[in-house]
Amino acid sequence: MMQRFHAPIVLPCDPACSVIRNGVVDVDDGRITYCGPVTEAPVLRAAVTHLSGILLPGLVNAHAHSPMTLLRGMGGDLPLLRWLNEIIWPAEAKLRAEDVRAGMVLGSLEMLSHGVTTSAEMYFHPDEMAEAVLSTGARVVLGGPIIDLPGFDWRAMIASTERWIDADGLRFGPGERIELSFAAHSAYMLPPEALRRTAEAAAARGALVQIHVAEAANEDEKQRAEFGSVPKLLDEVGLLDGRVLAAHAIHLSDEDIALFAARGVGVAHCPGSNGKLASGIARLADLRAASVPVGLGTDGPASNDDLDLWQEIQLAALLARLSTKDSTALGGADALLLATRGGAEALGREDIGALEPGRWADMVHIEADGFAFAAGLAAPDDQLLANLVWAAGSRRVRDVWVAGDHVLSDGEPVRVDREKAFAAARESAARLR
Amino acid sequence: MMQRFHAPIVLPCDPACSVIRNGVVDVDDGRITYCGPVTEAPVLRAAVTHLSGILLPGLVNAHAHSPMTLLRGMGGDLPLLRWLNEIIWPAEAKLRAEDVRAGMVLGSLEMLSHGVTTSAEMYFHPDEMAEAVLSTGARVVLGGPIIDLPGFDWRAMIASTERWIDADGLRFGPGERIELSFAAHSAYMLPPEALRRTAEAAAARGALVQIHVAEAANEDEKQRAEFGSVPKLLDEVGLLDGRVLAAHAIHLSDEDIALFAARGVGVAHCPGSNGKLASGIARLADLRAASVPVGLGTDGPASNDDLDLWQEIQLAALLARLSTKDSTALGGADALLLATRGGAEALGREDIGALEPGRWADMVHIEADGFAFAAGLAAPDDQLLANLVWAAGSRRVRDVWVAGDHVLSDGEPVRVDREKAFAAARESAARLR
Ligand SMILES: [Zn+2]
Ligand SMILES: [Zn+2]
Repeated sequence: MMQRFHAPIVLPCDPACSVIRNGVVDVDDGRITYCGPVTEAPVLRAAVTHLSGILLPGLVNAHAHSPMTLLRGMGGDLPLLRWLNEIIWPAEAKLRAEDVRAGMVLGSLEMLSHGVTTSAEMYFHPDEMAEAVLSTGARVVLGGPIIDLPGFDWRAMIASTERWIDADGLRFGPGERIELSFAAHSAYMLPPEALRRTAEAAAARGALVQIHVAEAANEDEKQRAEFGSVPKLLDEVGLLDGRVLAAHAIHLSDEDIALFAARGVGVAHCPGSNGKLASGIARLADLRAASVPVGLGTDGPASNDDLDLWQEIQLAALLARLSTKDSTALGGADALLLATRGGAEALGREDIGALEPGRWADMVHIEADGFAFAAGLAAPDDQLLANLVWAAGSRRVRDVWVAGDHVLSDGEPVRVDREKAFAAARESAARLR
Repeated sequence: MMQRFHAPIVLPCDPACSVIRNGVVDVDDGRITYCGPVTEAPVLRAAVTHLSGILLPGLVNAHAHSPMTLLRGMGGDLPLLRWLNEIIWPAEAKLRAEDVRAGMVLGSLEMLSHGVTTSAEMYFHPDEMAEAVLSTGARVVLGGPIIDLPGFDWRAMIASTERWIDADGLRFGPGERIELSFAAHSAYMLPPEALRRTAEAAAARGALVQIHVAEAANEDEKQRAEFGSVPKLLDEVGLLDGRVLAAHAIHLSDEDIALFAARGVGVAHCPGSNGKLASGIARLADLRAASVPVGLGTDGPASNDDLDLWQEIQLAALLARLSTKDSTALGGADALLLATRGGAEALGREDIGALEPGRWADMVHIEADGFAFAAGLAAPDDQLLANLVWAAGSRRVRDVWVAGDHVLSDGEPVRVDREKAFAAARESAARLR
């Protein structure tokens, strides 16, 4: 089924961050067939959706633990270790499958309402997360965490993801909405043997490995003593040979960055979480200079505390500028690209993150009627982009499509009853307290 | 006329950041007479307004140039000096009185819609700014900039503020909405003699002096060479003896901080602007430890780029934590206090910034029905505060009162036609391009 979307402003999120005025996006069976000016568009028999604002690709949240919406704000501002020991871990011990479902539905709706169409997720009960995302109509790359702690068996966790991929395929669901991945928690929570086995299992299936790397300055002293750094350890066990997404990646040496660049390792930069937990500021300018694929992540909503990736766009630019003392270190348009095509690239996905022929029609429509756009849509390109990135953000997200399906309409979820979703989450949250 | 406001959650923004459940605020002739639990409230014959969310004091934006809404995003992300020379100064040269009025109306509405009731302003045509704020019903402390540049006469600028205060009084308008102040641009834009005259004129009238201090690392080399630092220079010319509000105050020595503390100088901390322009990170933890009164400011919307003080609350906490490597350096509740009672204190105002008997009833009502409050209002106090500060922010501001007058109702301005205000701003913005 052919669809055409027509908007006064279309941002394809190509590498130049072009602004197309009076543009259209054509969609066939969920994939984009044309994106450009209406004057150059093919003659087409299609239903036309006329939009009044800005049309751009859905944002990609490159690192999240979204079911933790249920724990949002619990423990207030306790220091990290007390917060984990006294609040989060006891609450997570009470988690049931239906809680994860409720928390993921809520997180998925929150992301859609902010124009985020894809998230990379690592959390318990991944089967429930997949069902939750299928119900809201969003897109996800997910994996159950592989950890080595009393009560957890990393071998069984790897095997269960292997079995799932072998049964359902790497990607499945309408519009290939679900992608399975291996979510190795971190090098400090797993023995090298577990990392090696994860790498082999993932490589055999072309699957992504998600892993936390170099978040806290002192988390990996043991690994650094033995291997020099966590990136070197990951390389040694073969984990950098396949598709890898390193979350945080704050405390990296020049050598580590060069290694990531040489191996094509993607990085999920999480400036909000890293700031709130005082973990540090990732070397974004250096990562970009080395051509490491970088996306932006919110991290879990228990610690950040929302799933609004637009705030990470602003924060990425602010922290890049502060840490280099250079106000041109990261422009607004480039920061927007991190959250769209950059995130897709970091996940090793060339089928999302931009409005280009062949990619899935994951799209967001933002109304330009608020305070952010005081000069209106007639403003020059650079002003329009600055207004969007620095002032509008998620405030006026009205519509979202995933694989051409309308999943948010006038700010409200299309497929899920918002009130029921809130009620289910509230019930779970109350039980976890 | 007595009014009573009843809400499930009232945050008076007292120093402990208490959470009052099932609370009321009583208001007589615009001022608060009682704030506390309904069970201890006086028996009263009053119209009762029943609210369903969180009631807290209106936020105080301690540093802004709000008419610059008209220039928002112009020049995109050009480096600072090119941006000023090529974009901002040429645009400001075209500014007419009616442009400032239109820009200030828009900025005032934007602040009200984010729950900001008071702003400290420094901009041209202060008479138009006062009229604009009187029309929206907000509150302002304002002054026309005193600068020493070709075409500007600092003596005349001081004299015009003197005359205005002598004619209309320091505070005037319904609910004393307008406070006049002397807005000396900075020590690097004015000779010491101008600062001395400003100090005398302000002291004679009990007026506040607003001034930019230590924003860019290299702006004040000349002053540092002669006086040691700008704070020392300001002290020497007598400017620290009266009410002073120092904006930015980033590059301060221990001695400077001690001097500010000894003289009771208020600081307007502007983390967003300071980040975007790569100016640096103010020493918030040290300023607070020295008991310097600190508020939060957005700075002008041409550079920040919005007037949403809730983002400054989050940023203040993030940057305080990153710069001290301590995740407990500034808690969410303390950050909220900076934006309310802290801002009032920095402005030398004990009549706003908190819900306490005797203060003006400047209040904000935030609905707690969104994703931010997944656990609902039944959550414990610390979780509720974390949800408000870290996740909700301005998203669900529904009502605002200033001196007991309803000026924002269900998210819409009460006194000004929103569409007309936008149209006027758009017309001005187009002419300034
Ligand atoms: Zn994580
Ligand atoms: Zn300023």
